[in-house]
Amino acid sequence: MSKISLEQFNELAAERLPFAQLMGLELEQLDVAEVRMRARYNDSFLRPGGTIAGPVMMGLADAAMYALVLAHVGPVELAVTTSLNINFLRKPAAGDMIALARPLKIGKRLAIGDVALYSANADDIVVAHATATYSIPPQ
Amino acid sequence: MSKISLEQFNELAAERLPFAQLMGLELEQLDVAEVRMRARYNDSFLRPGGTIAGPVMMGLADAAMYALVLAHVGPVELAVTTSLNINFLRKPAAGDMIALARPLKIGKRLAIGDVALYSANADDIVVAHATATYSIPPQ
Amino acid sequence: MSKISLEQFNELAAERLPFAQLMGLELEQLDVAEVRMRARYNDSFLRPGGTIAGPVMMGLADAAMYALVLAHVGPVELAVTTSLNINFLRKPAAGDMIALARPLKIGKRLAIGDVALYSANADDIVVAHATATYSIPPQ
Amino acid sequence: MSKISLEQFNELAAERLPFAQLMGLELEQLDVAEVRMRARYNDSFLRPGGTIAGPVMMGLADAAMYALVLAHVGPVELAVTTSLNINFLRKPAAGDMIALARPLKIGKRLAIGDVALYSANADDIVVAHATATYSIPPQ
Repeated sequence: MSKISLEQFNELAAERLPFAQLMGLELEQLDVAEVRMRARYNDSFLRPGGTIAGPVMMGLADAAMYALVLAHVGPVELAVTTSLNINFLRKPAAGDMIALARPLKIGKRLAIGDVALYSANADDIVVAHATATYSIPPQ
Repeated sequence: MSKISLEQFNELAAERLPFAQLMGLELEQLDVAEVRMRARYNDSFLRPGGTIAGPVMMGLADAAMYALVLAHVGPVELAVTTSLNINFLRKPAAGDMIALARPLKIGKRLAIGDVALYSANADDIVVAHATATYSIPPQ
Repeated sequence: MSKISLEQFNELAAERLPFAQLMGLELEQLDVAEVRMRARYNDSFLRPGGTIAGPVMMGLADAAMYALVLAHVGPVELAVTTSLNINFLRKPAAGDMIALARPLKIGKRLAIGDVALYSANADDIVVAHATATYSIPPQ
Repeated sequence: MSKISLEQFNELAAERLPFAQLMGLELEQLDVAEVRMRARYNDSFLRPGGTIAGPVMMGLADAAMYALVLAHVGPVELAVTTSLNINFLRKPAAGDMIALARPLKIGKRLAIGDVALYSANADDIVVAHATATYSIPPQ
């Protein structure tokens, strides 16, 4: 079971992650097996070609993974990303983006997960795929 | 010699990359051998721990690499990131961030570079290191 | 349907991929949706700690992805890896290794897939996870 | 100063890294600031197109990084790779390969470095570029 509630995470994000607020991030589902996070579209997401800018997708993937890590270890705010690798596969049209993050390995020191990114209106086509590693501070 | 001027890039960013504007990105040097870009600090950059949020650094690295690609191929706005890998090495304090992007290989279809990220006030200590690949559309 | 048969691939590997032979690689299943490849254990796989050396897993992941690409594009031997990212999650014990490769996106110029690696005797526990991109030459 | 001598590393490799022996790896220079390792060419390195197979370069990069880590922490054999990311930039001709590994950050728990790969007879042209992270066990 998640060691942090969806409400707790959204509160933490509202107070402590201003960047997530700029990006319109909303946690929709929080579970140790899967996290679902939305980036609510606004026009600042666009880049030339009329598609969503890469940094939006990277920020969304990173934040979804952060929620997944906290689901496993509790409200350890100081968990930090040590690496992130992302492949951009298709050019998503303007609109909300969804990230689904799942654990690959949750260790004592490192947590690794993968994140699939979708357009909210086409949730069967992966538009980007990331893997990310978080470092969990000793407690 | 760069196929796009610093002014041209900043104009393109101002008109077509709203996300770069949100992040306070400013291109400071544009050359085929090296691009220097700044992310001008504002409080939305912070994350728990009082350090700069990962997405800020990822967005800065990606934009610096975009400028490097355009320096090589000209104003091909539709060049897009296909992959980005980043290692976060140290926790930068609040303040401006600098990215230095350099080419590893500029091919006809793919351009690959690496990007070192620094705090503006400590430009000898790399705080994050990224490699990124851009796809260059056929012209 | 795969554009190359399992026998064709194994023949190509036997004749043209001596490194795959050194590693005891055997293609077990070849499909456009999934490739299953085995690295048949020998003592050269070991590293300190009694676990399988990273290069064995990287070579296996790369070869499985190569087979997946050829399943999609046919016997285009000159398809080459442009990038590979791997996370080592757990230390596999001595024994055969299995790679399952699946497509993330097969484009005209680039093919991207992910590869999960298992110990053959514990095929429900991912020990390493890779994503790889191949470049497909113009034909 | 390096906490392990070049001879110590080569002895460890000879006794404990059979895969490195298969690949003809030889440590040529060992320093906390830079490690230089050679993969002595044999015909098993080749892949279709007459170039060096990717797994050879990945194995060489990983081993060079291992030597760099031991230079910093001493003969901690159980240091293991947690992730490796590699971009293949150019197709090296048949011949010895050289890896130059340099530290990006050596922490207590994680060591991160980058590795440039060259053909031995053209050491000014990077043919592949990797970053790798090692986990250092508590002692």
